Amino acid sequence: MGSDRAPKPEIEGAILAVRQYDVEVLLVGRKDELRAELRRHEGSFLPIEIVHAEEVIGMDEKAAHAVRTKRNSSMRVGLRLVREGRANGFVSAGNTGAAMAAAKMVLGTIPGVDRPALAAIFPTATSSASLMLDVGANVDVKPQNLEQFAIMGEVYYRTVFGVERPRVGILSIGEEESKGNELTRTAFTHLKQLPLQFIGNVEGRDLYNGNVDVIVCDGFTGNVALKVSEGLVQTVRSILKESLQATITRQFGYLLARSAFDDFKKRLDYSEYGGAPLLGVKGVAIVGHGSSNAHAIKNAVRVAAEIARNGIVQRIERELALTRTNNNSHHPAHTHSVE
Amino acid sequence: MGSDRAPKPEIEGAILAVRQYDVEVLLVGRKDELRAELRRHEGSFLPIEIVHAEEVIGMDEKAAHAVRTKRNSSMRVGLRLVREGRANGFVSAGNTGAAMAAAKMVLGTIPGVDRPALAAIFPTATSSASLMLDVGANVDVKPQNLEQFAIMGEVYYRTVFGVERPRVGILSIGEEESKGNELTRTAFTHLKQLPLQFIGNVEGRDLYNGNVDVIVCDGFTGNVALKVSEGLVQTVRSILKESLQATITRQFGYLLARSAFDDFKKRLDYSEYGGAPLLGVKGVAIVGHGSSNAHAIKNAVRVAAEIARNGIVQRIERELALTRTNNNSHHPAHTHSVE
Repeated sequence: MGSDRAPKPEIEGAILAVRQYDVEVLLVGRKDELRAELRRHEGSFLPIEIVHAEEVIGMDEKAAHAVRTKRNSSMRVGLRLVREGRANGFVSAGNTGAAMAAAKMVLGTIPGVDRPALAAIFPTATSSASLMLDVGANVDVKPQNLEQFAIMGEVYYRTVFGVERPRVGILSIGEEESKGNELTRTAFTHLKQLPLQFIGNVEGRDLYNGNVDVIVCDGFTGNVALKVSEGLVQTVRSILKESLQATITRQFGYLLARSAFDDFKKRLDYSEYGGAPLLGVKGVAIVGHGSSNAHAIKNAVRVAAEIARNGIVQRIERELALTRTNNNSHHPAHTHSVE
Repeated sequence: MGSDRAPKPEIEGAILAVRQYDVEVLLVGRKDELRAELRRHEGSFLPIEIVHAEEVIGMDEKAAHAVRTKRNSSMRVGLRLVREGRANGFVSAGNTGAAMAAAKMVLGTIPGVDRPALAAIFPTATSSASLMLDVGANVDVKPQNLEQFAIMGEVYYRTVFGVERPRVGILSIGEEESKGNELTRTAFTHLKQLPLQFIGNVEGRDLYNGNVDVIVCDGFTGNVALKVSEGLVQTVRSILKESLQATITRQFGYLLARSAFDDFKKRLDYSEYGGAPLLGVKGVAIVGHGSSNAHAIKNAVRVAAEIARNGIVQRIERELALTRTNNNSHHPAHTHSVE
């Protein structure tokens, strides 16, 4: 119920998803509104069900307060379905802060995770994608948070992309161990000791060149990197469009090469990746852009289904339990808030 | 002498600059090498002079140590020319850390500046450009550093782009005052009190949409934003090229629309902006990319000349002196390392 144009894109996205993938969708929100919107789409029986939730959390509400006070918001009701095993995953394109707070509150965090992290997927110049976390769940983080992000991201990448030994790097501003800020330098010494393929520091440009699979960073830097990318892609498109319309010859050329631009747009389109999974909570939760269209919602449902089918939450739990056992000798001061 | 392919692009860039702008260039480095390279270019008398410097600081050297021990590096010799008034500005495409350390050591910092900042210019979807600082001089900064960056960036933007009241924002991850990390939240309260057009927090996407003129941030985040942008532009180009070559029709379309791509490439080309000025030192110093080509060097010379002609260093000095006087009542605990 909470996205910029809810519930239109959610319902259209749900219809696309159940037609294209082997999934069922529960739509959570005000019954009458959802039913009215759903009726506007023709078609035979679809595996879509409505679950009523009276309240809605708006985009401009204070996240923590709204989640706490609105016990019957569509977010909390939807997440309860996951906790109770009635749904395998949760997708929201509403208030990001509220979705994260609600997921932490309703699902709880996996033992060994101090802070869940939002993970975003980026297209690269090669055939592979890169995964960056955190892109906005935690603004001020500690080295052990980055360590946990690395473990969670590695499990996710390995499972979803089928890469046996994903390369994990720390987002910094120079490749040498000594480069970066206090956080990255300390995290470097932690990550070196983990049983994963740690390739050291990577730089902003490595997000897009295929040199690294999993990139860890604090949520402030990650969010800036994500938004800079979104803004630049938009600017690139508008500059290109402007240039291509400037003369008749160019316009004709554009017509002929049009399918190339469609390819190009598709490869850089963030809605292809649906939404960002919140890793570290005890359940599948995907947070999408407030401006998500039906295509983005459909893809977010696909991502949620993939995570659920591959048991990524359980894998992360096992991996973290292993690391904690091995780690206790190194970092006895680790704190683990088990909810 | 210190760029990836020195001194070739430097010399070609210098020749382009003296032909195109009303400037004279002093080439600083090993006399024999420079003379040999210069001879390879035909042409009549050019206002280019060679100043000998025996030592070179390499890309992989530890910046601070190299600057301290190599008293006759081309960097230190070049910067001494500025300090002594024999040159109006200094341009280097060598080791960035060393260039910044050398500039601070040889030129000293302007009274009221605790930390000089590297400023980068970004193209936007509108006709204006945006200026971001710091993009790499300081990884861990304090709120009063961001305050000084704001003042320096505002003076620079106002003077170079002729905008009377540039809009100044803090790079954060949400527009509300409460959004961001500890640094940005405290800096927000400082910037509100400055006599400039402070528009509050801006987000990564605002770098490219023309909503803000001057963006302040710590050098870690700024460097990531810059490198993410460079990487994405490169990826965009290679994806587009690949798409356009996939079929004959597309190739033909590309031929017709080719000039549009040249426009497009030019607008996104970082070498158009030359290099990043280091603001806050007592003199004009421009730091370019190690991979700078002749075009980038030429533009860096142009930027250096613009800063010198407009007396930006002196303007920053005046503006900071004013702010310090006004500020002493607000922030008596400010420390100012005057060198």
